[in-house]
Formats: sequence, C-alpha cells, structure tokens
Amino acid sequence: MAVIPARPSLGAIVFEPIGIIHTPHRAQAGTPIQPAFAQGVGGSVSVFAPYVGALADLAGFERIWLLYHLDRAPAWKSKVVPYLDTVERGLFATRSPPRPNPIGMSAVRLLAVEGDELRIVDVDILDGTPLLDIKPYVPHFDAHPGARAGWFDESTSRAGIADGRFSGDPRRREPTE
Amino acid sequence: MAVIPARPSLGAIVFEPIGIIHTPHRAQAGTPIQPAFAQGVGGSVSVFAPYVGALADLAGFERIWLLYHLDRAPAWKSKVVPYLDTVERGLFATRSPPRPNPIGMSAVRLLAVEGDELRIVDVDILDGTPLLDIKPYVPHFDAHPGARAGWFDESTSRAGIADGRFSGDPRRREPTE
Repeated sequence: MAVIPARPSLGAIVFEPIGIIHTPHRAQAGTPIQPAFAQGVGGSVSVFAPYVGALADLAGFERIWLLYHLDRAPAWKSKVVPYLDTVERGLFATRSPPRPNPIGMSAVRLLAVEGDELRIVDVDILDGTPLLDIKPYVPHFDAHPGARAGWFDESTSRAGIADGRFSGDPRRREPTE
Repeated sequence: MAVIPARPSLGAIVFEPIGIIHTPHRAQAGTPIQPAFAQGVGGSVSVFAPYVGALADLAGFERIWLLYHLDRAPAWKSKVVPYLDTVERGLFATRSPPRPNPIGMSAVRLLAVEGDELRIVDVDILDGTPLLDIKPYVPHFDAHPGARAGWFDESTSRAGIADGRFSGDPRRREPTE
C-alpha cells in the first residue's frame, strides 16, 4: 500500500456563504445532534440576495439538505467519542464536528419558501451558521433505509442532545449565557 | 420581506482536499448523474496520509457519504434544465453542478477499507475529483423514503446519464479523448 502524500498542487478551495441559518440553538451544549433528535424545532434560513432566484421550485420538496460551515467546531481530531457511543471511533466513521473540512449536512423539513427566507423544522444547527448549499432531498437518491450502519447499529444510546465536548473554538466566542 | 445583503464580514471559507476520488468517468458526458444510476460502477478513494487514522471503524458501514469539490463545474447559474426534466428549475431545487459553492455529495457503497484506500461502488463522480469529507451513512439520520420530492416526483425521465450540458470549465481542461 503506497501512502499518497498531500498534493500541494491541488491547492485550497475557497467558498463563500450564500446565507445564514437562524435557530434557537445558541450554544453546542443542549443542541440536538441531528434532525432526528430535533423534531418540531423550528428555524429559518436567510438567503443572500444574489441567490434568491435559485430557490424557484424548491417549495415542492418536503425535505432539503442544508450544507453549512461548522464555524464553531474545534480543530480537527482523528479520533472522537461520538455522542451516541462510549468509546473512541475514527472521525470519518462519525458525524462529529471536529472534521478536517468542517462541513455540516442536515436533512431538515421545509415548511415554506417566503421570498429570501426558508421556514424549516427539525433543526439541529447552531444559530448564525453560514450556509454553503441547498439541495433537494430526493428519496430515489438519498434514502437507503436498510443500509448497515456499523457501530451505530450496536449502540443503545439514543441521547441525541449535545453536551459541550466539541465546544471551544479558537476563532469564535461561544455565547456567554 | 427584507432582503439581507451579503455580509462581507462573514468572509471566505477555505477548505483543503483530504484525498482524491478515482473513477472510470473521465468526462461529464456519459457519467451517471447519481449513484442510483451508477449501480455496479467501481472506484476508489485515496485518502492523504494525515487523515488515514480517521478511517477507523468506517468499514462497518454499508454506505458512506462522499463530499467533494465539483472542480470541473462551470460558473454558477440561477436556473438550469436538470437532466431528469425538460424545463428550467431553480438551481437549489436540483442537484446540478453549476452551484455557487460547487460541493457534490454521493452516498456510495463501501466495499472495503484497505490502508489509505477505500474501495467503493455505485460511483457517479468524475475521475480525479478532490475529496472534502467522508461521513457514515446512517439510515436513522439520512433515510426518508416517503419524502415528497417536487418536480422530481412528476418527472417521467429516469435517464440518469449526463450529456455535456454542464461541461466547460474555465479553470480546467476536459480530457481530449
């Protein structure tokens, strides 16, 4: 097995926020870790002006994928103890925030598209999170209900509310309340 | 409705590739548009050395999400005619490549983890694509088989192989074959 070194020629990839996600979750501790644990929690997405026209036809979808910058995640770690387990797992076998490229991904329910604003529910995202992309949830592409799920299938914990274990970002202060 | 202007203070978000995706798809024309249309198509992921330890525990998952940079997508467009439809749709109501932040997302089947290499199948990704993140596919989080899917539910086309409509990137030459 040849270990391929990082290719500096690939270079950095630069993205820009296309909007902001507004939610009742002000600090990581107490925030649901996935939409499945956030049922009924409402929020909204403000989409910046240049991108509002691209929201056409979205209202027909019951769910949408939000891709966003986990802007308060701490520096990345190779191993973490995920919220639903008691032992360390490889980071890529988890959905935990301290990722090399901290991109979050949530399939939230879409209630309405009102101009530049999406009203959403089942929201597991911190307030003020920068939005990177919106994609329609298409069951034909995205739903694999029977897929085997490794350690998750063995875990008995379904305590899907975060404590503060992934808090503490060098770049951004946590709310003080 | 107040249109919120882009907040320059949010700034750019910089990511770095964590690996490279190898596939038989050399040009967009002829490439399946989703894993659902790429059943049995094999490929591999080479993960760069610093990230190999984070692959622990991944092998137990039948499917994984690959998030990647659509590095050959053309400049973003507000409206596109998606492959499975005949009329223009808002970009965010499609999975088409010309997105403001060109992040692709595929739930591929994972066959094996061998050192720094993942062997995968159901691959709809162009050869040489820079990898941004790997997440486990967890049906409890990701599978919503009954979700209403807007124009997609009305579309009768299931011709899930790309033509060249989203080719032609200013930054990168298409293979000449």
